[in-house]
Formats: sequence, C-alpha cells, structure tokens
Amino acid sequence: MAKVSPRTLSGFMELAPRDQMKMEKMLSVLRESYSLYGFTPLDTPVIESAEVLLAKGGGETEKQIYRFLKGDSDLALRFDLTVPLAKYVAGHYAELSFPFRRYQIGKVYRGERAQRGRFREFYQADIDVIGDGKLDILNEAEIPAVIYQVFTRLGLKKFKIKVNNRKILNGFYAMNGMSAKAGEIMRTVDKLDKIGEQKVKQLLIDEVGMFPDKTETVLDFMAIQGSNAQVLEQLERFRGMDETFDQGLDELIVVTRYLRDFGVPEENFAVDLTIARGLDYYTGTVYETEMTEHPEIGSICSGGRYDNLAEYYTDKQLPGVGISIGLTRLFYVLNEQGLLSDEIVTSPCDALVLPMTEEVGPAVAAATALRKAGIRTQLYGEKRKFKAKMAYADKIGVPFAVLLGEDEIAQNLLSVKEMRSGEQRKLSPEDAAAWIRETIAERNSGSIISEK
Amino acid sequence: MAKVSPRTLSGFMELAPRDQMKMEKMLSVLRESYSLYGFTPLDTPVIESAEVLLAKGGGETEKQIYRFLKGDSDLALRFDLTVPLAKYVAGHYAELSFPFRRYQIGKVYRGERAQRGRFREFYQADIDVIGDGKLDILNEAEIPAVIYQVFTRLGLKKFKIKVNNRKILNGFYAMNGMSAKAGEIMRTVDKLDKIGEQKVKQLLIDEVGMFPDKTETVLDFMAIQGSNAQVLEQLERFRGMDETFDQGLDELIVVTRYLRDFGVPEENFAVDLTIARGLDYYTGTVYETEMTEHPEIGSICSGGRYDNLAEYYTDKQLPGVGISIGLTRLFYVLNEQGLLSDEIVTSPCDALVLPMTEEVGPAVAAATALRKAGIRTQLYGEKRKFKAKMAYADKIGVPFAVLLGEDEIAQNLLSVKEMRSGEQRKLSPEDAAAWIRETIAERNSGSIISEK
Repeated sequence: MAKVSPRTLSGFMELAPRDQMKMEKMLSVLRESYSLYGFTPLDTPVIESAEVLLAKGGGETEKQIYRFLKGDSDLALRFDLTVPLAKYVAGHYAELSFPFRRYQIGKVYRGERAQRGRFREFYQADIDVIGDGKLDILNEAEIPAVIYQVFTRLGLKKFKIKVNNRKILNGFYAMNGMSAKAGEIMRTVDKLDKIGEQKVKQLLIDEVGMFPDKTETVLDFMAIQGSNAQVLEQLERFRGMDETFDQGLDELIVVTRYLRDFGVPEENFAVDLTIARGLDYYTGTVYETEMTEHPEIGSICSGGRYDNLAEYYTDKQLPGVGISIGLTRLFYVLNEQGLLSDEIVTSPCDALVLPMTEEVGPAVAAATALRKAGIRTQLYGEKRKFKAKMAYADKIGVPFAVLLGEDEIAQNLLSVKEMRSGEQRKLSPEDAAAWIRETIAERNSGSIISEK
Repeated sequence: MAKVSPRTLSGFMELAPRDQMKMEKMLSVLRESYSLYGFTPLDTPVIESAEVLLAKGGGETEKQIYRFLKGDSDLALRFDLTVPLAKYVAGHYAELSFPFRRYQIGKVYRGERAQRGRFREFYQADIDVIGDGKLDILNEAEIPAVIYQVFTRLGLKKFKIKVNNRKILNGFYAMNGMSAKAGEIMRTVDKLDKIGEQKVKQLLIDEVGMFPDKTETVLDFMAIQGSNAQVLEQLERFRGMDETFDQGLDELIVVTRYLRDFGVPEENFAVDLTIARGLDYYTGTVYETEMTEHPEIGSICSGGRYDNLAEYYTDKQLPGVGISIGLTRLFYVLNEQGLLSDEIVTSPCDALVLPMTEEVGPAVAAATALRKAGIRTQLYGEKRKFKAKMAYADKIGVPFAVLLGEDEIAQNLLSVKEMRSGEQRKLSPEDAAAWIRETIAERNSGSIISEK
C-alpha cells in the first residue's frame, strides 16, 4: 500500500513525550498560580462565526486569520483569547459578577509566515479582570503581581516586568503638540531596542516628518532611566503641563506603590517609558516582560488596561486589565536555551513493575498497591527477556524498576531498583511506595525552569 | 455603533463559570487517573494536512470533516485523536519506546447535524497502548481497569463496562457460513437495544437477505446472558468448531480473569455478545460502557484492540488497544441529569478579602498571606459600600469572606465569615488559613459526580 507521509504542518508544535511532560508541568503551574489569585477558568470554542471574531475588523488580523466556509456558514479560528472573552462577557453578562476575573489557557491560530520559533498554532495563557462601568486601579498592580508569581514558580529569575502608562505618553505628546502623530511616533520609538537611537531619529524625521529638534525632545524623554523612584521623580518635572499626563503619572505612582505592597521585588519590575503596546486598545497601564539575559526574544508576557472590552458586542461599558503569556513560544525559547530542568521526572511513570514469572497476578497486585499509594505505575506485560525489559526501563527513563520473581512473591516483598544510583532494596509494598514517593518528591521539588 | 450579536455557534459548548469549574474537576481527575497508570500526555495539532487526516478516507468521516484551504494548503481539523496518534507514532517511531502508552485529552471536530446534546466541537479523552510488532493481552484487561478507576474516582457508580471479542463474532459467523455477510449482520444486530429482537429479525431477512432459521441462530447466540462465568460457560458449547472463535474465547476468558485481578468488581463489567464496535478497525477485545440507569444515552466510553494502528503511514506493524471517553457529551448528560455535585467549591476563589478602610495595604498583605498558605484568594479592590461587597461575595458563591476594618488591622487579626453558616470568627492569618483550608478540603472531598 502506498503510504502517506506522517508529517506535521510547519508552524505547528508537536512535542516528543518527555518535552510534553515539561510543557504539562508549565501548564499546571500556570493553572495553579492563576487559581490562587481567584481567577476562574474559562473555555471557549476554537471556531467562531467570522462575523463575531472580526467584529473589530481590519489590520493584520484579517490577513492572518484561518477563515473558511462550512456549508453556508462563514467560520474562523480564534486568533487570540481576548476577542472570545469580549464575546463571552457580552453574551453571558447577566450571569456574571463584576469584577469578573477569568483565566484561559488555549490554542489560538495565526497564519503567519512560518519561520523558526514562530508558530501558527500556539497556546496563550491569559488573565483578565473586567469591571462593569468602572474598575479600581488596584487591579493594574495585581495583574503584574500574578505574573511575578507565575514566573517565580516556574523558576524564572532573570526577568523584568516593564510598566508604563499610555496616558503619560499621550499627555507628553499633547504637551509638545504632537498628538496628531502620536501613534506613528510610538510605533517608531518602539523600535529603539532593535535599531538604536540614531536610526529611530532618522525615521522620525524622514518618515514621520518631524523637525529634528522635536525628535530630540522625544528621544530625551524616552531616555529617562534609573531606579523606579528616579524615573518617577524625573517625570515630576512635566507635571502641571497636561491633565492626561498628570493623571497617568498619578496612576503610575499608585501602581508602583501597590506592586511593592504585593511583594514584587524592585529587580523584577521597572518603570520604562519606551513601552507603548499597540495602538488604540490600551488606555492606561501597559506591561511587557523581558528575560533580562535574552532581550533578543522580545516580550514574553504583555498586556495592559483598556476602557472598553466589548464595544463591538454591547453598549455596556466594560473596562478591564489583562495580560497574556505566549506559552508555546516561551516553551520553545526555554527549550532552545537549555533552560528546562532535567531533574524533574518526565518519564511516563515513576515505577515500572516487571513480572519475572509466567503468572502475572502478583505483579498486577503490586502495581495496584503502588497506584493506591499514589505512585504513577506502569505494569510491563510483555513476555520478553530480562535484558529487554531493563533496556525498556532505561529507555523510558523510569526512576524505579520493581522486580517480581518467585522469591519476592513467596516473601510478599518487592525488589525495588533505583535506576540512577543502581541501588536495589527488597521492601514491602508499603515501604517501596514510601521510598519511591520520597525520591520522586525530592526530584520534583525543583522548578521546571532551571536558570543558572 | 452597530453591534454584532455575541453568539456562540450551535453545537459548540461554552459553559458558565461554575459549570466550567465542574468540567475542570473532571479534566483533572482524568489527567490524574491516566497518569497513575503510566500513560504519558500528548498534545497534537488541531489542524493537520487533509491528506494526512484522510489517509484512510471514505465514509462518514469525509462528509463531516472541517476542511479548508489556507493559501494553497489543503487543511482539515482532526475528527478524533486516533488518527493523530497513528500519525504521531509513525512520525516519531524512532524516538518512542514500545509499548508506548499515551493519553490525550483534546477537542475534535465533526460537522454533524446540530441537535440537542450533539456537539460539533467536543473533548475526547483517550488512552492507548501501542506495541511494536506485538502486544500482550494483559493490556486488553488493563484498559477497562483504568476506565473503572476513572469513573469510580469521578463518583460514577452505576455503570457497566461491556466486553466482547471480535474473534468470537467472526468465528461464530464463519462456523455458520455467514462470513460474507458478517459486517452487515453485526451492524443490524447492533440495533437490538434500540429497535428490539423482532425488528432486527425482520431487517436480517429483508435487508441482509438471510433465511429465517439462520436469523434464529444469530439471535439465539446474541441472547446468551447471565453472569460472566455463565456466559463464558455457554460459549464453551461452540468450542472446536472454528479456530478464530476458539482463540477469541480464550482471549475473553483471560481478559475476564485479569479484570478480576485488576480489582474490577463483577457488577461493573459484563461479557456482552451484542457489542461489536464499528467494522474493520477492531480485531479482538472490544468495549462499550453503559450508565446502567441511563441506557438511552448510549456508550459513554468505547474502544478495543486493533492490529495495525498506522498502516496508512508506515510499514511497521503497530498493534494496540485503546479507549475513548466522549467527555463533552458525558458532561452535558451528567449536567442535564442533575448528577454533578453542588457540594464541591465552584466559586473562583475560596476566600474573598474585603478591605473596609481607605488604605488597602493591610488587605493586600492579608491576601498575600492566605495565598502563601495555598488558599485561592481574591482581593476585592472596588470602592463600594459594604452591602454591595457582601452581595458580590454572595453572587460568586465564595465560601469565606475576610473582612479587614480598623479594628482588625490594629489587632493584626482577620474577621472571617463562613458564608453558608454565617459563622464569623476573628482569627490570626494563620488560623484563618487553617479554618478555610479544612472547610474547603471537607467540601471538596466528595466526588464531582453525585449519583444517588
């Protein structure tokens, strides 16, 4: 028979089993951390009516979207989790309590040009808090505090959550008579990291059409640096010149103070005036997150405050604040950089029970006893030679092999071999479970990211 | 602005938050149970090349599949998790160790005619064991043993895993000279449950073209009932007439014996000769699972033994055995029947911290302390009246409200109110965490399915 090549589409991640186990650990840390902060899990369809998904319409989105007809239905795959959230909140408004806090971890689809480390199907892991009419600024500090927790629990240490406020930028451009070009300027300034100050300046002159002295004003502003206190202090110089600016500065001061209250250390967040995030969606606090030793990766977690989540679906004013981790890309990068722990157990099981006799009843009983004790146990039922069985144990990387021969059965004991050390003990099922449990807990006690 | 209706497509499940929490509990029981038996988690793309997904081709599949062009790529959404597994095992063959045991819980897509309780996007929760060249029969008993564990942990009690063997059926038809029509007969006999013996008989005569006395032979065979031992005993009468039959009977005897070894009680599994499962895919043991008080629902978990998983992708002979839970439909049915527990906590958090002073620092500290103690905590930051805050606590169904006024702050205590009983205690953060933890653990100790 002619065979079809079992290929996976490019831009789609499909992990080998041990890598998948690492991904699962990351997913479970995310779920636990988000839950700990009182976010409720949501799950929305991957397919929606194209009209619903593209209610906002325009731009890159429409070009990248997976859209197709089924019968006479015009359908599309979600390209983020924010539009489905807007739809959900508008559609379920009457059932929900506000502030409504939800997390969603799910796959989204963008038909981008495939290239290394870019994915067409990828997980986003989002949290958002939605208010009804208004929403307290406290939430704008709590969101990055959750993200600090998440990354810390994952084991990431060298990261910085950069915080800015769109009102500061808008106010600054207003006080300099640049409001009309604010969007263009922000998009250009956003390239500072990548192309440097000189080239940005040239672009501002050539493409945005600014006078050279005005570009100095912008670049001087963007160059404001230092500790968070120092940056805030320098911003005080501009106070009183524009109402929006002053409001943004007040908000930034409050968010910075709350971030300390939430226990986020200074080294993990920075007021950074170069952060702008997109264009018309965000209206206040904005976030980006950088791995400090890998700035080339770009932001691994971004978001901000918005004033009107669901304006395309409802007249209700629903302000909110949210953030999104691009999980598939983050996993890919961590794996590439060798930053994922090899200490945590990634084999399909903690113990592999190997029957050494024809009759497998006692081995079944042993596996059942271990499972009852919470040990992830595989029963090896294949009739193969001892050597082949041990080779299998090695290959799946199981921490413990449990051997059951005539002697063990007669004594009601298990021969338990720790595969790494080679140490072998003859133990009762209870003692075997205890030894295995302790060893596994020890190995799994570290975090999934092992940053040096 | 004209609004787009925030509708969800028909046939797509989108749950309210508290129902979603119940679904999450089911998902986590599934993940834990599958892991306990040494199945490794896999995740494969939702989108595959149409050529890959339809390698087998033909039949209902092709009509129901979501298929579309993106650029000049002919793509399709997976309609089950078995074809992606076949692709995965063929593609990753060299990296895998056999027997390869995987679980996968993921959404699949079928463009069926939408009707109540039928879904176009739904979760399947699959386990499979794949051998390289051969696979021991022990696995054919372990698979339903896992399923017994899963349903028991979920809290389901009144279910029966029905077991049969395709070789018994094939052998029986062969010894009666009906092999050519075996497929048609099986499909007709499959309707026994729905339309009864008389109508099946008529169909066998009218549509399959059997002689009336031959239909008696078939229906007499299908009518073999009793305890597992009694059914097996009655099957012994046919021994020696057909080699395939004898082999199937031997296998069924072994599987039945192993099922007892695995601790599956007699009331939860039954040898049932009417179970056939599809047509050419399964080759040995087959399973269906019935909720005994809701036979109208049909099988909630089905599968079986197959000889050649990936023949469309590879020359390797890869026999396996697997089973699939149709999770979305199961959830829908349980919810409809009122069988999901209302005792387990489904609010977004276990404790809601309500600051009663202008300064929220102490409330942030209290929330942080509770979270450190593992309590899912929401900090309520909105500046609203006491009554509105308590109404919110009621509406989200939070088990505990934690009040922080001037007095509490001065005394470094928390006023903790259990919302259900109304009991209020003034406690240190540690004691508060302990009380909350115990109460929540007690409420969550039951299972998610509460069958009377």
